[in-house]
Amino acid sequence: MCTPWIQTVSLEPPSLRDNTADTDRLQHALSLRLNTNRVHIDLDLIRRLPEVLRQSSYRIRCILWKRRQQWFLLEVSAAEDQHIAAGLAVDLGTTRVVLRLLDLATGRTLAESAFDNPQEKIGPDILTRIHFAEKENGLRELNELIVSGLNLAIAQLCASQHLEPQQIYVLAVAGNTTMTHLFMNLSPRWVIREPYIPVVNTPEDVKADDLGLQVHPRARVLIFPNIGSYFGGDLIAGILSSGIHQNAQTGILVDVGTNAEVVLGNEHWLIGCAGAAGPALEGGVTRMGMTAAPGVIDQISLKTGTPEFKIHTIDDLPPKGICGSGVIDLAARLFQSGMIDIRGKLVPAVCGPKIKMIDGMLHLVVVPAEHSATGSDLTISQADLDSLIRSKAAMYTILETITDSVGITPQNLDIFYVAGTFGSLIDPQSAIAIGMLPDLPLERYKPLGNSSLSGAALALQSDSYHDQIDRIRERITYLELNVNQDFMNRLSAAKFLPHTNTRLFPSVKVINK
Amino acid sequence: MCTPWIQTVSLEPPSLRDNTADTDRLQHALSLRLNTNRVHIDLDLIRRLPEVLRQSSYRIRCILWKRRQQWFLLEVSAAEDQHIAAGLAVDLGTTRVVLRLLDLATGRTLAESAFDNPQEKIGPDILTRIHFAEKENGLRELNELIVSGLNLAIAQLCASQHLEPQQIYVLAVAGNTTMTHLFMNLSPRWVIREPYIPVVNTPEDVKADDLGLQVHPRARVLIFPNIGSYFGGDLIAGILSSGIHQNAQTGILVDVGTNAEVVLGNEHWLIGCAGAAGPALEGGVTRMGMTAAPGVIDQISLKTGTPEFKIHTIDDLPPKGICGSGVIDLAARLFQSGMIDIRGKLVPAVCGPKIKMIDGMLHLVVVPAEHSATGSDLTISQADLDSLIRSKAAMYTILETITDSVGITPQNLDIFYVAGTFGSLIDPQSAIAIGMLPDLPLERYKPLGNSSLSGAALALQSDSYHDQIDRIRERITYLELNVNQDFMNRLSAAKFLPHTNTRLFPSVKVINK
Repeated sequence: MCTPWIQTVSLEPPSLRDNTADTDRLQHALSLRLNTNRVHIDLDLIRRLPEVLRQSSYRIRCILWKRRQQWFLLEVSAAEDQHIAAGLAVDLGTTRVVLRLLDLATGRTLAESAFDNPQEKIGPDILTRIHFAEKENGLRELNELIVSGLNLAIAQLCASQHLEPQQIYVLAVAGNTTMTHLFMNLSPRWVIREPYIPVVNTPEDVKADDLGLQVHPRARVLIFPNIGSYFGGDLIAGILSSGIHQNAQTGILVDVGTNAEVVLGNEHWLIGCAGAAGPALEGGVTRMGMTAAPGVIDQISLKTGTPEFKIHTIDDLPPKGICGSGVIDLAARLFQSGMIDIRGKLVPAVCGPKIKMIDGMLHLVVVPAEHSATGSDLTISQADLDSLIRSKAAMYTILETITDSVGITPQNLDIFYVAGTFGSLIDPQSAIAIGMLPDLPLERYKPLGNSSLSGAALALQSDSYHDQIDRIRERITYLELNVNQDFMNRLSAAKFLPHTNTRLFPSVKVINK
Repeated sequence: MCTPWIQTVSLEPPSLRDNTADTDRLQHALSLRLNTNRVHIDLDLIRRLPEVLRQSSYRIRCILWKRRQQWFLLEVSAAEDQHIAAGLAVDLGTTRVVLRLLDLATGRTLAESAFDNPQEKIGPDILTRIHFAEKENGLRELNELIVSGLNLAIAQLCASQHLEPQQIYVLAVAGNTTMTHLFMNLSPRWVIREPYIPVVNTPEDVKADDLGLQVHPRARVLIFPNIGSYFGGDLIAGILSSGIHQNAQTGILVDVGTNAEVVLGNEHWLIGCAGAAGPALEGGVTRMGMTAAPGVIDQISLKTGTPEFKIHTIDDLPPKGICGSGVIDLAARLFQSGMIDIRGKLVPAVCGPKIKMIDGMLHLVVVPAEHSATGSDLTISQADLDSLIRSKAAMYTILETITDSVGITPQNLDIFYVAGTFGSLIDPQSAIAIGMLPDLPLERYKPLGNSSLSGAALALQSDSYHDQIDRIRERITYLELNVNQDFMNRLSAAKFLPHTNTRLFPSVKVINK
């Protein structure tokens, strides 16, 4: 596939019969080619046109960009120029920032890289950063942290491909509302204060230079719009990438990152909600286990017919901890083997010698010290399990609430996208076993990977995706998660394994009650 | 009359029911008010919005600009803000630069000023400057000269009105093609080389900051488009100001500045030509006499029934010289009284004691030493008169050529606009008497004043004038003045007073032949 961004244009050289100015000549040719009224050309590029046109004998390669019906000419060179024109998709996460470098001509991925958001130095969570931004020079510092972090990562990523950062002509950036604000050097002060007002929801493209980004000086930056303070451009990018906004069937998209965000819909309607709106999720899903990394347990099963764990670690290294998907696998196995009861409480009689009492709290040894990479037992405590139960109950309650708001149930979903690393690693069967995700046929579960990054990359392929972004934003309804009695009743019912109402989970075999 | 640039807007304050972002809220209100899709807001203004909106309780004054269907928000402040928002019209002349400061709210003129184009230091004429621009750093120096000259003049003009230059939000600049190029820091190299190609004919608005202008950092600069290398935006501004492009009657506009430029037309068609295209005009009209200034003779008549001059000087000061309109008056009187013959030659027998021989050439004393401000005789030489004859013949020949190109004669013109200081000072009756201008009823002659400046000022009143500018540019046909045998025949016939064909000048009484 080819993008429309690189065009080779042959101009009729000027003559006494046709002494149209250089810029107007080029604009006329491009307007015909692109079927538009006018192509914007920055003054500094106009200054270089006479030389480039004459040196190339009026056969030139144009690097273009289109945004909301307006075309922009970003660079011209001789038609023979083979230099790569690159685009950069950015997933601007609170914790982690991921970059994908693309060939603008083809949309092909050249390379990816990631780095920890340097704002973590100020605070790991959004709230701390927002408060810091209100201090003198606080906003500036946060902005400089992310911009210089990006510049460093861009330089390294380009170097790995033998490109200059000046070869990046367009960027598409998807982040949550606060990250987007800090990136644009906009105060997030009112994002967290009633009635929760962002500075901007639908930013226009900005010149990279105006943001301090060290790429091509005329590069444009598309910043994904947000719906509101708690529903950001990253999720719009995720929706774009999933395609649920264009499906006839009703689907759901769950993105478990720093927050848990959920979007439900089809080609006719979209409804979204974010976990941060409900206190029940706080400290829940997101803190479960450690980040997926080499040596971390991501899968656990039971040796057939025994209560012995069979563990799998990332890259098959000695185990050093357990990540979210591993914890969910573990809980499913513990429940299936009766080592925890329907309330998630450890059952010492079943666990046997795996049980240890540490600091007055029951712990289950998952990997004994002699097999772990740390030299200590890898354990899960009753508190960890309680936390998991709260998280899974919150997740299921949100799914019930959002589906109920449109008169369906989680069991009616035709397709279930799980985004993020979590989505790539999680075993849906385990999540179903503990009642975290609904009991759907497994083929309806689709891992999406980093859907924010993929959505950002799509925005660099064609402006038809820009129209989709705007339409997603306009169509989506934000569901405020009111933690009312109804919600609390649902939450209570979901705090059992797999659920108080076991008819909702017909595939889950409950061994003991 | 009021312009649409200043609007007071009351926004519904945000609430939990309506937590639209600040920028989107304002954009929505402005879009409704202005009946547009989207109002562009620069990022640095977006950064200030949350504070301004909250401090003003969401009642704000907006300073706006519209260009080619696109609205721009340039500044916001509390609705009560009474600070003047100013616009600046600029006539960017090769010799003289004239500024008019306007109140953007009303279009009312606040003040005017003028200064000599500092590029004269490099060379008085366009060609010298173009050659200088090709030297190393030459273009930059020329650009800096005009930009710093403008900045100084702007600062002084604003100070005279107790305004800050930062209160200027929009500028409209009309100049010839080369002056426009130097102002935009564009190379004029190809303007003078066959096939005479400007870098740009129809520039988009530029941010004042990108041009180095010290006004409001978000100020926009509208630069008048040009038709080609020898037909600049100053003349388009002149046409706009004259209104001939909208008249049912056919009119002509003559602008005698550094070049003589002529536009003929009506609401259906426009045709233009410029004096620089014909060598006959070179060193002609433009060098005649000195610049109008206090003490300069601008009118001359004859004391009834005598060959004695009755002179008028600007500001009624003792005479120190004679300007173009004075020379034309003088020639008319000399011809009417028989002191020069139909070839423009001094007739010693009639001139009597007024004649002096200086350096072997006949001179006529206009003001004897004892009455002049200089203490010397003010004289006009036979060479001066010969030059005037060539100039007037060239002017009339151009008028004949351009009217003939559309099948009419100068005598068919319904309205005759004469622009510039020349147009304000010239007595059409004298110009007719020597056959420089056609023998039309005097009421058809209309002085326009600085029509480039007035046209630039109109562009600051409403974007309906911008549409007119674009339409004028698209509609106008450029008539190349081919100095062929036909032209030379006409020129020869026009070298007599008033003309070889006296039937063309029925109102002119010829005393001796």
